[in-house]
Amino acid sequence: MKKNTKTENLISNRVKNIEVSAIRQLPIIASKLTNVISLGQGIPDLKTPEYIRNGVIDLLKNSNEVGKYSLQPGLPELKNIIAKNLSKVSGWKIDKDKEICITAGAMEALAIVISAIVEIGNEVLVFDPGYPSYNEQIIFAGGTPVSVPLKEEWGLDILKLEKSITKKTKAIIVCNPSNPTGILWGQDDLAKIVSLAKKYNILIIADQTYEFLVYDNKVPPSFLKYRSIKNQLIICSGFSKEFAMTGWRVGYLFAPAQILEQAAKIHDAFVICAPTISQYAALIGLTKKPKNSKENIKADLTKKREVICKRLDALSDLFSYKKPQGAYYILARYKKTKLNSWDFTLKLLNEAKVIVIPGSAFGSLGEGHIRFSFGASIKQLNEAFDRIEKWNKSLK
Amino acid sequence: MKKNTKTENLISNRVKNIEVSAIRQLPIIASKLTNVISLGQGIPDLKTPEYIRNGVIDLLKNSNEVGKYSLQPGLPELKNIIAKNLSKVSGWKIDKDKEICITAGAMEALAIVISAIVEIGNEVLVFDPGYPSYNEQIIFAGGTPVSVPLKEEWGLDILKLEKSITKKTKAIIVCNPSNPTGILWGQDDLAKIVSLAKKYNILIIADQTYEFLVYDNKVPPSFLKYRSIKNQLIICSGFSKEFAMTGWRVGYLFAPAQILEQAAKIHDAFVICAPTISQYAALIGLTKKPKNSKENIKADLTKKREVICKRLDALSDLFSYKKPQGAYYILARYKKTKLNSWDFTLKLLNEAKVIVIPGSAFGSLGEGHIRFSFGASIKQLNEAFDRIEKWNKSLK
Repeated sequence: MKKNTKTENLISNRVKNIEVSAIRQLPIIASKLTNVISLGQGIPDLKTPEYIRNGVIDLLKNSNEVGKYSLQPGLPELKNIIAKNLSKVSGWKIDKDKEICITAGAMEALAIVISAIVEIGNEVLVFDPGYPSYNEQIIFAGGTPVSVPLKEEWGLDILKLEKSITKKTKAIIVCNPSNPTGILWGQDDLAKIVSLAKKYNILIIADQTYEFLVYDNKVPPSFLKYRSIKNQLIICSGFSKEFAMTGWRVGYLFAPAQILEQAAKIHDAFVICAPTISQYAALIGLTKKPKNSKENIKADLTKKREVICKRLDALSDLFSYKKPQGAYYILARYKKTKLNSWDFTLKLLNEAKVIVIPGSAFGSLGEGHIRFSFGASIKQLNEAFDRIEKWNKSLK
Repeated sequence: MKKNTKTENLISNRVKNIEVSAIRQLPIIASKLTNVISLGQGIPDLKTPEYIRNGVIDLLKNSNEVGKYSLQPGLPELKNIIAKNLSKVSGWKIDKDKEICITAGAMEALAIVISAIVEIGNEVLVFDPGYPSYNEQIIFAGGTPVSVPLKEEWGLDILKLEKSITKKTKAIIVCNPSNPTGILWGQDDLAKIVSLAKKYNILIIADQTYEFLVYDNKVPPSFLKYRSIKNQLIICSGFSKEFAMTGWRVGYLFAPAQILEQAAKIHDAFVICAPTISQYAALIGLTKKPKNSKENIKADLTKKREVICKRLDALSDLFSYKKPQGAYYILARYKKTKLNSWDFTLKLLNEAKVIVIPGSAFGSLGEGHIRFSFGASIKQLNEAFDRIEKWNKSLK
């Protein structure tokens, strides 16, 4: 029974096919360098708002519960307020115990629900360019991500979407506003997706991470407007971006009861429960916001959007881009060089000490582009673009 | 292409086979009842030590980093001290960047490494009785858990272990001291496991969650003593139990570089990074402990062990048990009734308002037993046993 297995042969093939997202690789590469400015990973520069930090400090002083496991599906009070908020938009009655699970970030919500529904041989539709971790989550579950190319300026191509549907298609993932494009699709686009989902009985997985962050006073469109797809609708969201709490790792999954029940098993086997302290932080964020809080992340990012757009406009010989309507990303096309986007990114990092994310990390249509995050401080944004301007002059 | 798929058909078969651990089901059942005392889930009654809470409060006031993503594999300072601690025991040089990943609890460490090594058709050896989530993690990865029965009083039966090994065996999971038995195997037992692991080229996954908690001044035995199995040794551990921080969700994975690299991909796709605030809490726990701290979890649990053993001794008509040598669990056999352990547990919960965990949740040999956790306060332990004594008199 002796086997001559070396360590590399002890690794599962499924996992060998997964890649670590470039979004997380770049900071690790950059951590070996000094004096680097990051416009890479989507981390708002702001601290978690003071009222949340103060609320957590109170709990650390006085609560007996904040250091202990919560119930596995999350704090009932937090599930309750999420259910209420979803009810407000949808008008549906939502069962907080059967349809909501608090997770370690929207990412865990996506991972567990994808693992709950995807079988070996299944296909899941994702957009190109799109958020790369969906692909890894689908491959990890044994499925195949099928890329649906976007139109010019990152619009929805509904014909291409319908053409991509096969008998194996289980779900479609929609991130709106989009990471990495910063583009917001309207209610009419969502209506088209809903009608295909109904026609072919496909699940919709809505990644609403950036839903709160829509500019120009637009109302974010929502899949929650369509009662007829309630049993096909899955929402993954979090509080990372809204409350500048990326590192707290807290989010939620909203799904039909039968699917949630299955996803909760994976949640149990992977993390037991979301960090309790972070669940309380989210609860405070949602319920204790002072009326006159000066900490307004949306207003802050609105200003930063103007700064980055102005700086990009001044670099029009190097970049072209579409002004973002949501989130805090710009997927800009670069000119002047035939470098692929990884080489462009590494050259920019090594020569100008600025981190961006190579567009190819987001799909084949992302090639020739780089993603900027404008979550950094205005000072850092300006310093980064001073460096890029200087560097641009060095390019032939 | 129209499919007539109902929601239940949209769930992956692999996940249907997973069960939510009874350890987490019981608290949810009990949350609907009032005035219940839990000797169920392993949650120390103590608050997270004051020096850790104070350190975190400082960071919440002053740090710019505590609310943001950490690097995906964890805070370098935390990985560094873990590497040093592992080096101290083993004498090995440990590469913190290639062999250690900070995870959202020991549970995530187990889940990602099992998913990284287990392929469909593989077998993983677990002990019966043993911690049930291993089974769910193995099934989730497409493998088959193979139960190796323990000897009387929960000792290692090395002959049965060797007989359970087949060509499909990929790994063996060892939790020492054991959840749920509270029994500590000695260095001689580990040596026997090591020799089989070498003979058959099997990975050892050591769940060291309770390693810090060994009573009677015993030195915890360790797989780190065997240099020859370094490339087959995986350690999953955390800080939940040592620092009374179960709810913070922070732990680590130590594995050969090639395996860690793969597991880190799953970590990236599931949680991105462990909660940053919790990583700092662990770092403070490991580095800032005051010399004369009165908060001594081990001394506290030593006292509680005496209390529970005394109370169980007084109930010898109902229970027999072996005094725990580690962790804070007792897997006690019950007499007087032919109820199975789930029914016994529910009867005890409904009639005496005390939560325990049914032994069958830990494997077939656990049937006829219930698991007590003695992490509760001494007052609660006594109140729970007052109730059980009264209830015992009501049993025919």
